[in-house]
Amino acid sequence: MKPYYAVIFTSLLSEDTKGYSEMALKMEDLAKKQPGYLGFESAREGVGITVSYWESLEDIKAWKAQLEHLKAQKFGRSRWYQQYTVRICKVEREYSFRKK
Amino acid sequence: MKPYYAVIFTSLLSEDTKGYSEMALKMEDLAKKQPGYLGFESAREGVGITVSYWESLEDIKAWKAQLEHLKAQKFGRSRWYQQYTVRICKVEREYSFRKK
Repeated sequence: MKPYYAVIFTSLLSEDTKGYSEMALKMEDLAKKQPGYLGFESAREGVGITVSYWESLEDIKAWKAQLEHLKAQKFGRSRWYQQYTVRICKVEREYSFRKK
Repeated sequence: MKPYYAVIFTSLLSEDTKGYSEMALKMEDLAKKQPGYLGFESAREGVGITVSYWESLEDIKAWKAQLEHLKAQKFGRSRWYQQYTVRICKVEREYSFRKK
């Protein structure tokens, strides 16, 4: 398996979620166009967990610094998020199951 | 930061979810008692994402081989899960935001 990276983003929303869903979709679309993007999974049930997958740490850094994404991050801190944690991880091993 | 590990478990449920929620809660309780357990976060919105955090790869291996957990995994494959992927990751960096 070629090593790759996961960014685990966990968050709690504040009460002001105006514009949040639209921005989340926009960022998902934008991320897909970034170099090194491999995939994306997201679910919210009280806590929100978003995991994005990337070829390298450099790709993650470039996405973090992307202009529209920087604006979204700023809105996130001033409005939407009560708190969040970002974890940059190296995927060391994986396995899957699929029902036949 | 002392390095630690994350297990990203993503899944799609099958139509037979009888007993699933009870087992999920039981496993959450059991995991907390395992050596090296650091934390746990879970959300389902179509896709289910559960991330558990561990001190070492050995702790993850021990949890995977825990007797009750093995039974749960067997049920998971025969009944509850349409598909799942497990990713074992090393957390290389993290940062947090909290609204003041």
